[in-house]
Amino acid sequence: MTNQIDAIAAAQSHRAANGAAVLAEFVELLALPNVSRNLDDVAAVADRIVGMLQRRGVTARAESQPGAAPLVVGHLTVPNATGTIGIYAHYDGQPVDQPDWSVEPFKPSLFDAPLTEGGVEIPFPIADDGIDPEWRIYARSSADDKAPVMAVCAAIDALSKAGLSPTNNVVFMFEGEEEIGSPHLAAYLHRLGDELAADIWLICDGPVHQTRRPQVVFGVRGISEMEITVHGPARPLHSGHYGNWARNPNLELARLLTSMKDADGTVLIEGFYESTQPITEADRAAVAALPDDDESLRHELGLGDPEGRGEALALRLLLPSLNIRGLDGGAVGERAANVIPVAARASLDIRLASGNDPQHMMELVAAHVRRHGWHLVDADPDAAMLAAHPRVASISMKANYPGVRLPTDSALAALLVGAASAAAGEPAVAVPTFGGSVPLHHFTTILGAPIAITPFANHDNNQHAADENIRIANLWYGVDLMASLLTMPVNH
Amino acid sequence: MTNQIDAIAAAQSHRAANGAAVLAEFVELLALPNVSRNLDDVAAVADRIVGMLQRRGVTARAESQPGAAPLVVGHLTVPNATGTIGIYAHYDGQPVDQPDWSVEPFKPSLFDAPLTEGGVEIPFPIADDGIDPEWRIYARSSADDKAPVMAVCAAIDALSKAGLSPTNNVVFMFEGEEEIGSPHLAAYLHRLGDELAADIWLICDGPVHQTRRPQVVFGVRGISEMEITVHGPARPLHSGHYGNWARNPNLELARLLTSMKDADGTVLIEGFYESTQPITEADRAAVAALPDDDESLRHELGLGDPEGRGEALALRLLLPSLNIRGLDGGAVGERAANVIPVAARASLDIRLASGNDPQHMMELVAAHVRRHGWHLVDADPDAAMLAAHPRVASISMKANYPGVRLPTDSALAALLVGAASAAAGEPAVAVPTFGGSVPLHHFTTILGAPIAITPFANHDNNQHAADENIRIANLWYGVDLMASLLTMPVNH
Repeated sequence: MTNQIDAIAAAQSHRAANGAAVLAEFVELLALPNVSRNLDDVAAVADRIVGMLQRRGVTARAESQPGAAPLVVGHLTVPNATGTIGIYAHYDGQPVDQPDWSVEPFKPSLFDAPLTEGGVEIPFPIADDGIDPEWRIYARSSADDKAPVMAVCAAIDALSKAGLSPTNNVVFMFEGEEEIGSPHLAAYLHRLGDELAADIWLICDGPVHQTRRPQVVFGVRGISEMEITVHGPARPLHSGHYGNWARNPNLELARLLTSMKDADGTVLIEGFYESTQPITEADRAAVAALPDDDESLRHELGLGDPEGRGEALALRLLLPSLNIRGLDGGAVGERAANVIPVAARASLDIRLASGNDPQHMMELVAAHVRRHGWHLVDADPDAAMLAAHPRVASISMKANYPGVRLPTDSALAALLVGAASAAAGEPAVAVPTFGGSVPLHHFTTILGAPIAITPFANHDNNQHAADENIRIANLWYGVDLMASLLTMPVNH
Repeated sequence: MTNQIDAIAAAQSHRAANGAAVLAEFVELLALPNVSRNLDDVAAVADRIVGMLQRRGVTARAESQPGAAPLVVGHLTVPNATGTIGIYAHYDGQPVDQPDWSVEPFKPSLFDAPLTEGGVEIPFPIADDGIDPEWRIYARSSADDKAPVMAVCAAIDALSKAGLSPTNNVVFMFEGEEEIGSPHLAAYLHRLGDELAADIWLICDGPVHQTRRPQVVFGVRGISEMEITVHGPARPLHSGHYGNWARNPNLELARLLTSMKDADGTVLIEGFYESTQPITEADRAAVAALPDDDESLRHELGLGDPEGRGEALALRLLLPSLNIRGLDGGAVGERAANVIPVAARASLDIRLASGNDPQHMMELVAAHVRRHGWHLVDADPDAAMLAAHPRVASISMKANYPGVRLPTDSALAALLVGAASAAAGEPAVAVPTFGGSVPLHHFTTILGAPIAITPFANHDNNQHAADENIRIANLWYGVDLMASLLTMPVNH
């Protein structure tokens, strides 16, 4: 049985001895255009990746669906596997029509330092020694998210050359539509079903911590979006003739929104926190161990009085949030007129913690609105309807998707922190959840597997923007991390 | 000393015997274009009015200022006058470029019924008998506001023919810029000063009550306008990464606005009602005597739960109002994005009751904002400023002008209700104040005279719109009203 430490050492030796070849193969992959909407382009990338896997003994193929980018699926089966890990990445990339690229996005180029720090272009190395880990490769998807494909291939090579074997079976899934919202991922997962069974799916995407420390993230939030329209008078009213008598929907909306959250930032909607995956001592310990940049963030962002009575931002992200992303009623500024408008609207997003059902959370908000005396209607009310009820509102809802989170105190979580720390040679940052929303619930709901995010790109990789790049040190860490993951002692 | 009842009888006889001539002279006045911005046009109207007054023994002239429409000033001095009344009207009119006029706005036409009820055009009468009081003259400013000029001229004729004399000296002031906001009125009043001294200035403008009953109005509200900008983070923040921690200015604004008014509609800003001219028993009695259409209005306007715990609308208008005319923060609908915006804004209008100082009332609002923990800044705050204060806001203020109101229990108020009731032959509706804002404070602050509004146009005169018209019955009531006012027993 391969020792995880030996596997990491093998990865380090491999990239030290064959770094130039690894970079050369990566350059070939990066040179293939991969903007998501160009189906021919992404299909060519999928074929290339299938070839890369097959050359390494992985049973791989490109699955297809009409109108969809191919899904690359692969299996690496080892004797006496202790478990099965899924490796997910995406090979498509964001558009590159931004005018401010300094280099050609699909002509990978090497620089001796970040462009923003005066980096100078240098030729790709021929010899393996002298590769500076501070060099950077500039190209679209060099970080997001072709790098994991290269890293895992290099890790397989490393083990193979050292005569070692992964201790886990590996299922590979490389998606070609992530940057346009994964429109066919659920269908692919439903179709492939059992074939994609794994003890955990590892989402290889995103950057390490901004301190450059390795990082493992155990969850993401989901999201629901809703809009509340508060109805005022049947027609716009002169504020002089009717002000003080006709209720103003702007104020009534303000009152309603105010009732939803207290001054500390605690949502007052009944049941809002109930379904949330409990915050454990392990979560609190993980948050306490995070590099503490709340205070510097507070100054950078200009936050005089954050919500949550001094609780750490990372802890707040474990809860669902209620955000009034938009307010609109009447007009302000030059367009302001002395009227009582017919309606006022608030647009809300609810970031869902693991455990929160997207539709149910909005129903709780609607119940709150009703409990505060509002009569809810589906269509614009007429004067008779308005006169018949003290308060009339409409609510529209868009249930997007739930959040997911691997318990911080689970054995798998500990295993992943160990794997990343061992690969990096320093303690990995364990993040209980990202605050943002990514539809990773497909893995948990369709495949029934837990997920975690195991990123390795540099935090300043310019993901989605011009001059995307990967730092060589981060690519090397990626190779080491993959070797570590392939051999971590998953016990199913 | 002329008896008021005799004067009214004289007016009635005069228009019965000379109705055709009165209408003919009115038609000549209406045929003169009077859109405010066309200075040559309005100057010609002023000259015509000076001639009309002079022919009746009034010492009249057109005062001028560079760039301003002329102000027609006239004096009618009588022996043994008991007092002096000022008669104000305006001879300019709203633009007529609306495409939906059914007739030519400056070619007065007579219809046998309202156009909206199938009225047919008929020739202007030659004989005095058979003039139907339900006929209507259609022309721009037939009601708003050339009618009072004609009415007072006809009333002077009536008294003169009956061998009667006004019992009050009369100062005439006919303005040519009312429809564009009276930009030079204050300057004219300052310049003419003592010459315009009067026991009361009667603002002859606007319609009678919608029940068609005569109406006298004792005041108007003033207005101040302000905008509150609540500052959020230094840059727009991702609601996933920072929601639950970074305060959202939309919610903070909602909370602030909610603190300003309770659910009954009572403004909670300290001192907000203090300077208001007290509401007297006479005011309450006048309001109680008003035709009660609150309930039908409530249904027509779709108001399920008016503010004020069941208080009459007319009583509510005696108080200053706080109206959130506009709300804006982030975006709603299709444009909504999952961000915490950098700012949220509310635009407010404050309708000022008599007694409220325009600037002071806004200062009270600002003090309320400060008292609720907000740090007020003049310029957009930077991150350091934002981080240094729990709450940061900016306020801009525009102090327009104060309201004015003749006490309902004053002798003058009683006199005016009597004069209108006697002229109409039915009890006049006594309205303590209009809810809207008109800059009548110039009369009280510059001339030191109380004001009241003595309107006589039909309520459906299409003021400011296409197909403006006056009903003959209302014009006749105007003649009678003027005779009554010229002879009411003012005691100075």
